[in-house]
Amino acid sequence: MPRVVVHVMPKPEILDPQGKAVAGALPRLGFDGISNVRQGKRFELEVEGEVTDTVLARLREAAETLLSNPVIEDVVEIEVDRTGASSASEASA
Amino acid sequence: MPRVVVHVMPKPEILDPQGKAVAGALPRLGFDGISNVRQGKRFELEVEGEVTDTVLARLREAAETLLSNPVIEDVVEIEVDRTGASSASEASA
Repeated sequence: MPRVVVHVMPKPEILDPQGKAVAGALPRLGFDGISNVRQGKRFELEVEGEVTDTVLARLREAAETLLSNPVIEDVVEIEVDRTGASSASEASA
Repeated sequence: MPRVVVHVMPKPEILDPQGKAVAGALPRLGFDGISNVRQGKRFELEVEGEVTDTVLARLREAAETLLSNPVIEDVVEIEVDRTGASSASEASA
């Protein structure tokens, strides 16, 4: 089944307390050399049928309305993973 | 400054209530054809200096201990983005 992966990150100008907490914890745990951390979200959506341009446009709309809050977050990437997608290539994996 | 992106997802056998909530909301908002949704995390770490194999090994350790909970989550991917990385290529962007 094809999969679409949506990546959402807090906008650069928005404070990211989770990322700050991770950045603060890293050196305390002995991991040095990281100057900044931002934490976002990754959604994996399993799509029924083929990921056509129409489907992808709809998913982009969903990503920008339901999966992210456009006031404070950006959809930074939408990846399409078509492996195991079409019924024609079912046996090839 | 080079950036390392760590992708964390709930393990397949672990229930993912956030993903389930999104999967339930999609058809209500008119987005059909999505059979399953899983929600994970994406961390962007800015690294001081070069991302050598040693640095990457340490970051993998950090990803598997601090950035994810190995009981319920998997580090599914660690991406290295070296753009704007070395001082030699500072002016090229």
